[in-house]
Amino acid sequence: MEAYTLGEIASRVHGTVRGDASRPVTGIKPLDQAGPEDLSFVAHPRYRRAAATSRAAGLIAREQDIAPGRNLILVENPYAALAVAMELFHAPEHPSSGISPLAALGEETRLGRDVFIGPFVVTGRRCRVADRAALMPGVVLGDDVHVGEDSLIHPGVVVYSRSRLGARVIVHAGSVIGSDGFGYAEQGGARAKIPQVGNVVVEDDVEIGACVTIGEGSILVAQSGVAGSTRLGRAVVLAGQAGAAGHLTLGDGSIVGAKSAVLQDLAPGSFVVGHPAVDHHEWKRCQAALRRLPELLRAVARLELRLGSSRGAAPEAHRSVAARPAKARRSPGRRRR
Amino acid sequence: MEAYTLGEIASRVHGTVRGDASRPVTGIKPLDQAGPEDLSFVAHPRYRRAAATSRAAGLIAREQDIAPGRNLILVENPYAALAVAMELFHAPEHPSSGISPLAALGEETRLGRDVFIGPFVVTGRRCRVADRAALMPGVVLGDDVHVGEDSLIHPGVVVYSRSRLGARVIVHAGSVIGSDGFGYAEQGGARAKIPQVGNVVVEDDVEIGACVTIGEGSILVAQSGVAGSTRLGRAVVLAGQAGAAGHLTLGDGSIVGAKSAVLQDLAPGSFVVGHPAVDHHEWKRCQAALRRLPELLRAVARLELRLGSSRGAAPEAHRSVAARPAKARRSPGRRRR
Amino acid sequence: MEAYTLGEIASRVHGTVRGDASRPVTGIKPLDQAGPEDLSFVAHPRYRRAAATSRAAGLIAREQDIAPGRNLILVENPYAALAVAMELFHAPEHPSSGISPLAALGEETRLGRDVFIGPFVVTGRRCRVADRAALMPGVVLGDDVHVGEDSLIHPGVVVYSRSRLGARVIVHAGSVIGSDGFGYAEQGGARAKIPQVGNVVVEDDVEIGACVTIGEGSILVAQSGVAGSTRLGRAVVLAGQAGAAGHLTLGDGSIVGAKSAVLQDLAPGSFVVGHPAVDHHEWKRCQAALRRLPELLRAVARLELRLGSSRGAAPEAHRSVAARPAKARRSPGRRRR
Repeated sequence: MEAYTLGEIASRVHGTVRGDASRPVTGIKPLDQAGPEDLSFVAHPRYRRAAATSRAAGLIAREQDIAPGRNLILVENPYAALAVAMELFHAPEHPSSGISPLAALGEETRLGRDVFIGPFVVTGRRCRVADRAALMPGVVLGDDVHVGEDSLIHPGVVVYSRSRLGARVIVHAGSVIGSDGFGYAEQGGARAKIPQVGNVVVEDDVEIGACVTIGEGSILVAQSGVAGSTRLGRAVVLAGQAGAAGHLTLGDGSIVGAKSAVLQDLAPGSFVVGHPAVDHHEWKRCQAALRRLPELLRAVARLELRLGSSRGAAPEAHRSVAARPAKARRSPGRRRR
Repeated sequence: MEAYTLGEIASRVHGTVRGDASRPVTGIKPLDQAGPEDLSFVAHPRYRRAAATSRAAGLIAREQDIAPGRNLILVENPYAALAVAMELFHAPEHPSSGISPLAALGEETRLGRDVFIGPFVVTGRRCRVADRAALMPGVVLGDDVHVGEDSLIHPGVVVYSRSRLGARVIVHAGSVIGSDGFGYAEQGGARAKIPQVGNVVVEDDVEIGACVTIGEGSILVAQSGVAGSTRLGRAVVLAGQAGAAGHLTLGDGSIVGAKSAVLQDLAPGSFVVGHPAVDHHEWKRCQAALRRLPELLRAVARLELRLGSSRGAAPEAHRSVAARPAKARRSPGRRRR
Repeated sequence: MEAYTLGEIASRVHGTVRGDASRPVTGIKPLDQAGPEDLSFVAHPRYRRAAATSRAAGLIAREQDIAPGRNLILVENPYAALAVAMELFHAPEHPSSGISPLAALGEETRLGRDVFIGPFVVTGRRCRVADRAALMPGVVLGDDVHVGEDSLIHPGVVVYSRSRLGARVIVHAGSVIGSDGFGYAEQGGARAKIPQVGNVVVEDDVEIGACVTIGEGSILVAQSGVAGSTRLGRAVVLAGQAGAAGHLTLGDGSIVGAKSAVLQDLAPGSFVVGHPAVDHHEWKRCQAALRRLPELLRAVARLELRLGSSRGAAPEAHRSVAARPAKARRSPGRRRR
């Protein structure tokens, strides 16, 4: 097993060592499982006590979260540092290549080089699995499904016919891509089932959690992500680098702007942007108002001068805008779920 | 591939052609994928711009949603028309018949004519799969499960022992029929596990979305439907043509009246009716009140006359009921989620 | 089939027979399916009418829920009695032992005595399946997964690498143990994927519902339970005998105290206790206040005496605490979802 010194790791994660920089470690483990050859981490002051009793050789931590007397790699963001440090020790979980003789590959299915096809995988007709992609045990692809290079499809995932997955896509176990159910059109009380036509398009570098369902006609643009158990209805669009938290419903036809983060359910037909994502009209109004903020500050200062308001006289809640240093001007943050 | 003219399609969907009724099309595709031999559709004014640049030979649309200068099939409800038009072009997704040699069928399992059994399907003892039913790859049936004629069970669905699925039932991928977990009875602090006894009964023409769980003892009466990721607890009843939206929880023992539409979670033991479904007592009171509405209108009119209220004098919010034409009397609709 | 008299069953469930104690029954069925040789049960007054027309030989019921004229086993808690009675008739659902020739067992996977391995089961490298454990069809275990004695893993369950399941664990169909998705750390706008390191630990006697996802690093301590479709994020802890209702999200790092019952979503980092579970600080304050309740009652009584308040004079809402009998003093219960 490869070993790195705390100093080597610190320079990789842009941190500073406090303590023995030459101390070697061979892996990364949680506080309570780490031994004297492991690195561990403290991502929250809650773990201060566990850190004190951990047998770890060193800890990745923020200065304020940890009592002195340990070998530390001090960083601003322990999670980000952890992610980088882990890449040193952990080979990706990608399985080695090979085609199980227990898989059932459909007619005209074409496989790239170095793919992994697990036992009991089923592919439909005319599927394409690109180089180094992995279909873990029990994955089922419908007809005409494409899976891009280096993608990793975990056990039991079902991809309905005609869907396209890009390169480096990860889909976790139990997810269903291509239908979350059904569409019915009502007319005069009668219902007609709408046949499924739209496929699902998942672009490059997308990650999809466990037991996620993605309805037909949806598009996940490159580098977007969906956490576990979330449900995308029909024709949902996640633009580039957008994300959705777990266990949410994104209604039919909802659109999530680039880099936006959805933290609550979306009604059908929503169009949201931002982090957390809000209605795009609201967001635009806020952005427009934001650009007028300097002007607003000047206007309020003028009003205050005209009305003779002064720092000493005004109660705390009415302190003069003009009198406050720019640095203290912070719009109050409100957390949404 | 079969071709139809826009005129032929219009007469099938009860629409009117504006433009070239003799123009042939060979399929239906979304606006951005449609080519000069395809029909497409505009279901929302949001797609007006996409419609303008689409290469489609013609569009199904409402008059108000679309700019002139295209071949159109004008209808009131584009989704309903789409559903009908699609039936012309899309053969049902039902697979052709055949029994995979890679399936594991249990003792005394009996198969009807022209069934499809995919690879890695497992059936328990004494199962029955009726004529033309399809068990897609990786479906698992427990003991004594019956699947009715023409039913389509998508990949990876698990049906627990003794459950019954009717004719023309569709179950989407990843759903679990027959247990969503467990029942415990508490007595004096001790817990006793309640063994599973009730089976699940799914009657004819029911559709069940992806990753739906249906607890034991539940009954889905004919033509009901459950959208993706919804969870039915133990002993839930969906009466005929009832539906439940996606990602909901219907608590143990809840009952949904015929033709009702559940759009929010139901507490255990609920009994709801209507669209959207509300508590059945509330619904009955509303229905009773509704029948007294004509009487009420007359009473209010009499009161107004006695009090000398007149149209001209009353502010907008207090306009005389007596003076308003019957056609304008509309109860305000409130949308629930 | 074995037969028991109503008298024998009554003594087993600590109930009393009203009617013919010598009447034999051979099974337990719901009211509408029970025949003249079956026992049935009435767990709610709602079923009074169904009970009247049931053909059952006898009914387990509470006295107040049922009209006279039937053979009854009268109990306080019909569900608990039912659970006990069922154990007489229902052998556990555990399948008989045997290794399907259609399973794919990984290198160095070791199986205990009398295990059941269904068709199309896949195990990774170095897995251990202990005595009498059952892996139903299509179960997939990653590398280094351990499954304890007498555990029952239902069809299609996926367990990610390095996870540990204890003895007598039940996991229902479609659940995913070990990853619900992904972790990303953000730093300066860039995202780095956090490799998966923590395994999932499920201790003895835990039951997990259908389509549950349990994220990496989570621990389910002995005798805890998770109902269907609930999602546990990363590093969630359920202490001993804790439970979570169905279709909930327990955020990353949330901790549920022993014997607590989670009935609503938990934000990341929550620490809750109680039934229903509330924030542990709130709970501690309530518990502290509770201990001061006797003192409080005395203080209020003294105040009332000093102010000369009297039972007759005070309106209902201000009745004297001093004057009320201890038995009637009940803190008002508020139900949470």
